Amino acid sequence: MSSTAPKNTEATWWRSIKQFVRDREREMIAFRRDLHANPEPSGEEMRTTRRVADALQQAGLEPKIMEDDRGLIVDLELNPDSDTLFAVRADLDCVLVHDAKSVDWKSTRDGLCHACGHDAHASMAMYAAIAMHEHRDAIRELNPKKNLRFIFQPSEEISKGAQSMIAQHALDGVESIIALHVDPYLEAGHVGLRTGPLTANCLSFKITVNGQGGHSARPYQSIDPIPAAVNLVSMMYQLGPRSMDSRYPLALTVTAIHTGKAFNAIPDAAEIWGTLRTSRDEDQDNVKARLREVLRGIATSTGCDIHIDYPHSSPATNNDHQIVEMLWGAAEQVVGRDRVSLIEMPSLGGEDFAYYQQVVPGAMARLGTAFQDPNARFPLHAPEFDINESALVTGVRFLCRSSIHSIIE
Amino acid sequence: MSSTAPKNTEATWWRSIKQFVRDREREMIAFRRDLHANPEPSGEEMRTTRRVADALQQAGLEPKIMEDDRGLIVDLELNPDSDTLFAVRADLDCVLVHDAKSVDWKSTRDGLCHACGHDAHASMAMYAAIAMHEHRDAIRELNPKKNLRFIFQPSEEISKGAQSMIAQHALDGVESIIALHVDPYLEAGHVGLRTGPLTANCLSFKITVNGQGGHSARPYQSIDPIPAAVNLVSMMYQLGPRSMDSRYPLALTVTAIHTGKAFNAIPDAAEIWGTLRTSRDEDQDNVKARLREVLRGIATSTGCDIHIDYPHSSPATNNDHQIVEMLWGAAEQVVGRDRVSLIEMPSLGGEDFAYYQQVVPGAMARLGTAFQDPNARFPLHAPEFDINESALVTGVRFLCRSSIHSIIE
Repeated sequence: MSSTAPKNTEATWWRSIKQFVRDREREMIAFRRDLHANPEPSGEEMRTTRRVADALQQAGLEPKIMEDDRGLIVDLELNPDSDTLFAVRADLDCVLVHDAKSVDWKSTRDGLCHACGHDAHASMAMYAAIAMHEHRDAIRELNPKKNLRFIFQPSEEISKGAQSMIAQHALDGVESIIALHVDPYLEAGHVGLRTGPLTANCLSFKITVNGQGGHSARPYQSIDPIPAAVNLVSMMYQLGPRSMDSRYPLALTVTAIHTGKAFNAIPDAAEIWGTLRTSRDEDQDNVKARLREVLRGIATSTGCDIHIDYPHSSPATNNDHQIVEMLWGAAEQVVGRDRVSLIEMPSLGGEDFAYYQQVVPGAMARLGTAFQDPNARFPLHAPEFDINESALVTGVRFLCRSSIHSIIE
Repeated sequence: MSSTAPKNTEATWWRSIKQFVRDREREMIAFRRDLHANPEPSGEEMRTTRRVADALQQAGLEPKIMEDDRGLIVDLELNPDSDTLFAVRADLDCVLVHDAKSVDWKSTRDGLCHACGHDAHASMAMYAAIAMHEHRDAIRELNPKKNLRFIFQPSEEISKGAQSMIAQHALDGVESIIALHVDPYLEAGHVGLRTGPLTANCLSFKITVNGQGGHSARPYQSIDPIPAAVNLVSMMYQLGPRSMDSRYPLALTVTAIHTGKAFNAIPDAAEIWGTLRTSRDEDQDNVKARLREVLRGIATSTGCDIHIDYPHSSPATNNDHQIVEMLWGAAEQVVGRDRVSLIEMPSLGGEDFAYYQQVVPGAMARLGTAFQDPNARFPLHAPEFDINESALVTGVRFLCRSSIHSIIE
């Protein structure tokens, strides 16, 4: 792909930004570790919001905190005559997993962990805003055609935050939007890009199996929800992949089962949670239809009442070709030509970012955060997940470079 | 069976005891409802212990509270020359189930419920002690050969209380022991009896499935404990009954599964709880051996580490023939000949009472507490379980009559 880098001007503003970011590496790592040690789940990101807002304010920016003190936006006025914006989006919430690491910045909150890298996303977007604010005079000399907005959204993990930010006018005036997402298997210092879908159609489900509790010695006097639950999960795993075109990707994953409190009492009910991820709408429809029948069949077999809800859904992301090309050029400038790679297959992860892309063109890039030691690499959402912090400088520089490319092009 | 009732003396002392118990019915129901509304789980029966001790003390008795303020015993000295005792045992703890009733005496403590009737057992034993203490002079005139002890034990539901009471010398001097257990399907005012086993060999199990968590979109990067858990439960249900002589009873029941906390993260581990109940030791051995192989097989198939513990066990009860005969006679005197029935099959319930029977001969009787309306009958340990309180008077009278029969025979 072609590079649109403004090479002529690199000498002055780019070297200075690069150095500025490098000089703040320790501070940035400390900031990210503080967020990591104090994770907040979706809808409760008050401390994280406050920390980011305070740091921006201290740097001379004027962040605007969103309703309920969750999430914020901050604008950089680089061209007072323009009423359009280029946006960078980051997210603030953590995942509901136990932190199993033994590092100093391990989560201090039981059952909560920044195992999806949002601590890094927020830190990088924040330092990119600060770096560009510090260099606002130099950037203004490049004759930018737009201003910049940084969006720090809550509730990404439950697919609610983007919609809430949009409803609060976060996209008003925004012409295009980008975001970074850490990738624990892509080498640190590398960037991955693709046009079209980067993530999947995601649907979370919550199944309630209602039976009739009783004594564990007399199952015949109960309607035991546990055989219903285990057979339901088993059938989902067997029939999900058999209800759609096998050439397309599917991840149907049960992530939680909760039932019972005692060793000697059959419970009344069981709850089953999970997600259904496909790359195509029709595959999601087909698997959902099959699930309905599986539920009916298990209900008939066991006598339980079984109900399914879909509490969260997010569409597939859809990366805009032109923005990906711009990002590619910026990435080559930042990390070098051989460290930018094409992502062959979309991930089956879900990404709330897709909601912004339904309003304006946008693209999400993958930022490599892999550790050199393959044994230290753990998947997103794993209790041992962490990032190679050397990638933070790369990420901030990449966000700065991409933003500047976008507004001066 | 023959009756050994001392009919000659009934006119005086028995009519008086009967009336005494009837006069206290409202008070007794109120006492039982207070326990019901304030259930305490195994090992935490401090309030219940205190309530029973206070009531006994107020009646002029001298209860002795056991270590850690859980459980108590109280003696009635009826023959100062005798150093032997006949014992009545009751239990104090509740079950870890949610109370789903909508009565005034519904549990006030979330997740805890007297769904096994121990509130009734404790109330009946207590009022029997009080009634006989009030009639101590009349009973002494019957020339009793033994004294009486009432044992109120904690931790029946986890099969620890009896052993703890025995270790604290509760059986010292005791020659034989009886207990009542409510039966929600036997008509109120009826008594059920059997010689030999009344309850089963019980073993509780706790299985830990350790995998490796990760993102729900990338199960191939995880070692998912959930397919392991559901297939494990499924195989247990299929192979348990196929690993022992099918002519003997078996209840293999999974009562709890807990795994996962999020919609989008594969958890590290799953926990499975349940009980294994058989009428014979060899059946328990055979099913346990099969479980071991099932665990190994699922571990191999899934890559998870799987571990099983057996946190609680209790042997089968073994009702002494002579004591059952004595109880039969007493029951006929109290409820009438046609309301005493033989229990054909032992239950698969577990009963800590079995531990006393390993030290001294004993017998447990079933007291009918069924509601007239069949739709109001729920099994022991069910969230809707309750007792027909009209059975309380019957129970207290039966305990008095049996105790007196035993000490004067």
